[in-house]
Amino acid sequence: MRQALHRLTIATQRKGLVEFTRPVLTWVRGQGIATGLLTLWCAHTSASLAVTENASPEVLDDIRDSFERLVPEGAGYAHTLEGPDDMPSHIRAVLTGPQLTIPVADGRPVLGTWQGIFLFEHRSRPHRREVVLHLIGEDAYALGGETSKTA
Amino acid sequence: MRQALHRLTIATQRKGLVEFTRPVLTWVRGQGIATGLLTLWCAHTSASLAVTENASPEVLDDIRDSFERLVPEGAGYAHTLEGPDDMPSHIRAVLTGPQLTIPVADGRPVLGTWQGIFLFEHRSRPHRREVVLHLIGEDAYALGGETSKTA
Amino acid sequence: MRQALHRLTIATQRKGLVEFTRPVLTWVRGQGIATGLLTLWCAHTSASLAVTENASPEVLDDIRDSFERLVPEGAGYAHTLEGPDDMPSHIRAVLTGPQLTIPVADGRPVLGTWQGIFLFEHRSRPHRREVVLHLIGEDAYALGGETSKTA
Repeated sequence: MRQALHRLTIATQRKGLVEFTRPVLTWVRGQGIATGLLTLWCAHTSASLAVTENASPEVLDDIRDSFERLVPEGAGYAHTLEGPDDMPSHIRAVLTGPQLTIPVADGRPVLGTWQGIFLFEHRSRPHRREVVLHLIGEDAYALGGETSKTA
Repeated sequence: MRQALHRLTIATQRKGLVEFTRPVLTWVRGQGIATGLLTLWCAHTSASLAVTENASPEVLDDIRDSFERLVPEGAGYAHTLEGPDDMPSHIRAVLTGPQLTIPVADGRPVLGTWQGIFLFEHRSRPHRREVVLHLIGEDAYALGGETSKTA
Repeated sequence: MRQALHRLTIATQRKGLVEFTRPVLTWVRGQGIATGLLTLWCAHTSASLAVTENASPEVLDDIRDSFERLVPEGAGYAHTLEGPDDMPSHIRAVLTGPQLTIPVADGRPVLGTWQGIFLFEHRSRPHRREVVLHLIGEDAYALGGETSKTA
């Protein structure tokens, strides 16, 4: 059993979702781990991680706009010192979360066909965001290819 | 230290929460791992995972209805091609998340007394949903039964 | 590769966020694991875990008040038997989640500068909440200090 760590820096321009599935897959592939567990950690309180459809850019705009309505700017917050987009950013980050943990099978995170990995930037201005990647696993294939049906 | 992988297929009929705690516990029990870490991954962008009370069916209806109000259909989305329930599904899946990671102690995920594991279907029509289970751990018991009090 | 388990009990007084970063860091430090993966599990359905800014108490009040508006009491719930704050608690717990998994590097969870770990109490009255900590890893340092830039 082995572990590996990595850090990705993601440049954001404005509020919204930035996909970074590809560099994650590339890094995992390079570790030579057939079966394992991949964890991504976003080391910020005004950006977060999300998994959603990576086929249509409209979906990403709709998600961004929906969060704008769910947690609006200027909703009477006490903490306004860092600008009107700061407090909603913290709340949106709590709603979406800083972390994803994905099983790795056959050397690849088990993402579904339409699932992409996204950094969700909640601030209006450009930022550099750091995501820590951790992988634990081994070269061997695990037992358990079988599928059970339930419900 | 060992790993195991499994896939569960869950049939859904409509929007709402479908419990699948039992097949998860059964699979974990069969792996002979006393101490470990269990990860569940929902490989979809319009269904997600949730943990909530498994005693009252009213709780499940209230959660479903609450998400209907939080992220309504027909809220001026740009992405409407796949039906009125599609875009809210993606947003609700981002809010609840595709993944759960649960410590395993004494051969059992450390769920609280009232905690059940649920698939949250966000689409109106029936679907077959795939959840990947990953377990890493060992037969030995870990040190650390002690409890600290804080705050 | 080794594992360790621990249980923290956190006393809450009312709705809101209670930080417990320090006892988590102290416990991890005591395990002698340089590289690993830390998982926290909140064993309740009306309290959850969150990561947010730990510098300003105003931020914590704004988050609490924002959840009060997002998922209000008295919104026509069917499940009212356990009091007006019960059903919103379950929904808020589903929105924030029972679990956090954090990579450990150099013997320390890779929290960002401003990131604190919080228990989010959703009930009005005092409770004793149990959080299970699981750590897997080894004393050795992992390869991979390097940082990639993307996007």
